[in-house]
Amino acid sequence: FWDAADVKVEGNPELQQAVRFALFHVLQSGARAERRAIPAKGLTGPGYDGHAFWDTEMFVLPLLTATAPTAAADALRWRVTTMDLAKERARTLRLRGAAFPWRTIRGQECSAYWPAGTAALHVNAGIAAAAARHVRWTRDADFERDWALPLLVETARLWNAVGYDGADGQFHIDGVTGPDEYTAVIDDNSYTNLLAAQNLTAAAAAARRWPDAASALDVDPVEIEQWSERADRIALPFNHELGVHEQDRGFTDRATWDFQRSARDDEYPLLLHAPYFLLYRKQVVKQADLVLAMHWASDAFTQEEKARNFAYYERLTVRDSSLSASTQAVIAAEVGHLALAADYLGEAVEMDLRDLEHNSGDGLHIASLAGGWLAVVAGFGGLRDAGDRMCFRPQLPPGWTRLRFGVRITGQRLHVDISEGTVTYTVEGTAPVAIAQLGARARAEFEVRPNKPVTRKWKPVKAITPTPTQPAGRAPQPAPRLS
Amino acid sequence: FWDAADVKVEGNPELQQAVRFALFHVLQSGARAERRAIPAKGLTGPGYDGHAFWDTEMFVLPLLTATAPTAAADALRWRVTTMDLAKERARTLRLRGAAFPWRTIRGQECSAYWPAGTAALHVNAGIAAAAARHVRWTRDADFERDWALPLLVETARLWNAVGYDGADGQFHIDGVTGPDEYTAVIDDNSYTNLLAAQNLTAAAAAARRWPDAASALDVDPVEIEQWSERADRIALPFNHELGVHEQDRGFTDRATWDFQRSARDDEYPLLLHAPYFLLYRKQVVKQADLVLAMHWASDAFTQEEKARNFAYYERLTVRDSSLSASTQAVIAAEVGHLALAADYLGEAVEMDLRDLEHNSGDGLHIASLAGGWLAVVAGFGGLRDAGDRMCFRPQLPPGWTRLRFGVRITGQRLHVDISEGTVTYTVEGTAPVAIAQLGARARAEFEVRPNKPVTRKWKPVKAITPTPTQPAGRAPQPAPRLS
Repeated sequence: FWDAADVKVEGNPELQQAVRFALFHVLQSGARAERRAIPAKGLTGPGYDGHAFWDTEMFVLPLLTATAPTAAADALRWRVTTMDLAKERARTLRLRGAAFPWRTIRGQECSAYWPAGTAALHVNAGIAAAAARHVRWTRDADFERDWALPLLVETARLWNAVGYDGADGQFHIDGVTGPDEYTAVIDDNSYTNLLAAQNLTAAAAAARRWPDAASALDVDPVEIEQWSERADRIALPFNHELGVHEQDRGFTDRATWDFQRSARDDEYPLLLHAPYFLLYRKQVVKQADLVLAMHWASDAFTQEEKARNFAYYERLTVRDSSLSASTQAVIAAEVGHLALAADYLGEAVEMDLRDLEHNSGDGLHIASLAGGWLAVVAGFGGLRDAGDRMCFRPQLPPGWTRLRFGVRITGQRLHVDISEGTVTYTVEGTAPVAIAQLGARARAEFEVRPNKPVTRKWKPVKAITPTPTQPAGRAPQPAPRLS
Repeated sequence: FWDAADVKVEGNPELQQAVRFALFHVLQSGARAERRAIPAKGLTGPGYDGHAFWDTEMFVLPLLTATAPTAAADALRWRVTTMDLAKERARTLRLRGAAFPWRTIRGQECSAYWPAGTAALHVNAGIAAAAARHVRWTRDADFERDWALPLLVETARLWNAVGYDGADGQFHIDGVTGPDEYTAVIDDNSYTNLLAAQNLTAAAAAARRWPDAASALDVDPVEIEQWSERADRIALPFNHELGVHEQDRGFTDRATWDFQRSARDDEYPLLLHAPYFLLYRKQVVKQADLVLAMHWASDAFTQEEKARNFAYYERLTVRDSSLSASTQAVIAAEVGHLALAADYLGEAVEMDLRDLEHNSGDGLHIASLAGGWLAVVAGFGGLRDAGDRMCFRPQLPPGWTRLRFGVRITGQRLHVDISEGTVTYTVEGTAPVAIAQLGARARAEFEVRPNKPVTRKWKPVKAITPTPTQPAGRAPQPAPRLS
């Protein structure tokens, strides 16, 4: 594990320790989970009563697929073992396909508050995304046919049933709840829509690759065509006056939360001080939502849109969830705010070492720790894996002299070694790895052959906005530097 | 009571009996309630556990103010006795003023499901409307100063706190639930907005009439000015493509419920067959909502808008609530669909005599019965009382040869006697009553002096749309005609 997965940070010893602490505990939570869920607290404490949530697939599995793929495959197989319950739940909701639970131990929906449970259908797109990603990284054909395909097909059917064609010709998904838990039961949540579209596209592609297996799931060509076609028409709300994407349709028209009052009266986390009745229809964001969409549906946004969106949502995001700082780190790095990204990374990986939410006694924040790894690899490494090749955009935050990390990809071990101005890619294994490196203007595509390291130059992203600000008192808690 | 309040219908003996049954039971529920709530089931059964709701003020009190004003005044005084609890509730919600409960026995909020309870803030506008109406009808200055003013002021403060000025210059109220319980936690519910605007306007007017009493409630001129000014800027969502008002912002863009399936699978009432998750963001209406707004905020809509809106919402309204048929009768009559109006009236007043919802054993539907009276008086009589004078627009449905009804107004008894083509107004008492009669094009204003009946002609409203249709299987249940 450590040979392939270790992250080495030079220039920040405390962070070095924290990242390894994170890797260790995520592996502990997943390595022998086998066909059980990986719960929010892993194996470390009684928090959340042992339940698993969407963050297994969206935060923990990206790390495990890249570093311990057999553990990731097991976690996805566990989801498939709960398929009958998920199909039954979909039928209860008068929908087709499968509706996986918001919180569960062995497959039943255990959330009692439907606006933040049942309505958070994005958990299904997260499962589909993890399955499709696992296939892209491992190229495990048997896994795709036997395990990923049913997950992709039944979740695609759910989106097809819950969405509708609007009079504007777009495909809409109304009445759902996105990642931000301070907004619920809204229309066209951008994150949900973009991941649902990916889900539909991935299901269509997998069904085309495995026609017999798809046919055994009663998939027919008309259904496949409808998935593809609706994915292409997904609605993505945009406010043209402000020039930013909307978290959901109408979000940017609503009143803004009184952040000054909340800072003055020490009201964080807000959910303990204000009713959802007030929170739900204000511009206030508990955790990365539109910003999370920019990470996982990167191609749906231009670089300039990402920068503007990030600045807009930073001033609304209070980070009352541990599932936020790591994503803010990823996008802060992508749009060139590297010191801010490092602060968010510090908060994500030191969540429990510094007991930042005063509840580490209930167990570790496994997804935040896994998110810390994402902040390093997808943030400073710039890793994106949407296409046929791994894409990087290397950078280093102030004070770091070198960053090394590794991933397992298509059976090989790929090491990335970032120093000031240069990056070296090394493959250990038997086959070349296809890479793309993004620069300020150009995209370079190349192959790295086993034991033939490739070194290239990089320049930091130039920020096009001033460093974004957070609501009063909600700036990230930067790691104290060892003297 | 009967001298002033009796309704006499010639041409439909069963309906005659039903209307008197309705009047009797509404009076029974309110006459000696004194400073207790008038509950949904009156004194007739254990349904709703004895709780009172918004329909006390919006359905029962219009009848009592017009026929038994001391009972109506008592009911409003009861609300004032719960003011401290309502203010405390507003503080719990971080709002100003008073937030009266959605369901209660003695003032505490007893609803456990906030999207259909707390969020249904319109209960406050309904209380304010009843208080202002009672003052208009009785001209009871002491009542206005001592009882209506505090209700108007504290509810106005609530709207001022919950609403906000949008970038479009309009005053918006987001995240509330309107009368239609198949839609919840939405933005700019037209009914809520229009009644909130009336509330703000009425509070400002009352505070200006009673400066010392208002000052004792800490009202200052700046606050009064803000109420008036925001009322004038209230948002009223309109779909220009369809030419109809929206029940809430975005309502007409959403997918339409699958009414065919619900008819085929015998799924009514829908709340027993489909989750709110699916119902809330579809175009499906449990009970009159935009149509209720057209009754109580009549001046906000042109006659043509009323006709188009009514046709649009008729095809979406499934009437899974008994608080609907009477309002549909009122507006059906106003836009010239008199046979349809009569059918809805029959359903409203015969709800319990024919046990249409199979639950009359739990107690009578007092608000539906009171609504039956509204269907007669505001529907066929065309009564509206928004201005300084009582406004009528007399009509008769097919088969009726004569309709007589009476109201107590400003201390007088006013009798209205509608025959084919003519209407006679008679005042018993000591002072004249100011009347306006609406015709197809003109509005006639006149005074009726005591014992000097005035007879005028009338013509039926000419419908500008075909008779609207309801979802499959949801046409009104017309009264069986006695042979």
